[in-house]
Amino acid sequence: MTTLEPINSFDDLTIGQAFEFGTLVMTRAAILEFGESFDPQPMHIDEAAAAEGPFGGLIASGLHTLSACFALMIRSGVMARTSLGGAGMEVAWPAPVRPGDELRVAGAIESLVRSRSKPDRGIAKLRFTGTRVADGTKVLDVLTTVILKR
Amino acid sequence: MTTLEPINSFDDLTIGQAFEFGTLVMTRAAILEFGESFDPQPMHIDEAAAAEGPFGGLIASGLHTLSACFALMIRSGVMARTSLGGAGMEVAWPAPVRPGDELRVAGAIESLVRSRSKPDRGIAKLRFTGTRVADGTKVLDVLTTVILKR
Repeated sequence: MTTLEPINSFDDLTIGQAFEFGTLVMTRAAILEFGESFDPQPMHIDEAAAAEGPFGGLIASGLHTLSACFALMIRSGVMARTSLGGAGMEVAWPAPVRPGDELRVAGAIESLVRSRSKPDRGIAKLRFTGTRVADGTKVLDVLTTVILKR
Repeated sequence: MTTLEPINSFDDLTIGQAFEFGTLVMTRAAILEFGESFDPQPMHIDEAAAAEGPFGGLIASGLHTLSACFALMIRSGVMARTSLGGAGMEVAWPAPVRPGDELRVAGAIESLVRSRSKPDRGIAKLRFTGTRVADGTKVLDVLTTVILKR
């Protein structure tokens, strides 16, 4: 687990501020389970068919990689006191994730805008990424828009 | 279940082509389960705390709404013969999803570009949306980029 201190207000953040959310392992069992529930394509749920497919083996659903990395960020608690919810995300999956891959999840603040209509809140854009620890390959790149209390 | 015919090639698609992927219900149990796994914020996992929070009750994780609607699209099988995977998504959650909400999932092709470097494939942008059946409120809006065989 990370030992990040929770922020108390949107106003505590600065542009460029960086966070390390820790690491996680994408297990084969978790990849298969998520695939069965939410993305039942052969490359995510069928070992034999995946081996014959475009990736030459089982890979995680992109939504699974996104959700697992997001969970680590939430569990860090950094935004827990201030978050009023997410408004949107731009997501890219530059490389596939395979069973056993360990991912490092990190983030940085890209923009901070006070709400004009609601002076008690601000809108932060946070980029968070998942990087395979073994070789430094980026596998997830997300720009997320979060509403935070001031 | 929907009775959509699977397409056989990127070249079978046309801009503006629309798809109905069916409907699903976001149950309280599924909302809590997804929240515990991937988005453990009070508004997604703690009924009492959620009631006191900004949404006045439990709401689904945006990633859950995204994943559940995406699953319906995948299960339709429309892209099953041709999909080589997703490259990216832009996601917006214009309104919260509450336990018991029934969502209609639909999509339309927004752009089609043949790959310059790989003539055996094309890049389709598909917008898919989740709409609450009870009142027509859009709760999910996704522009997804998919690589398809030609």
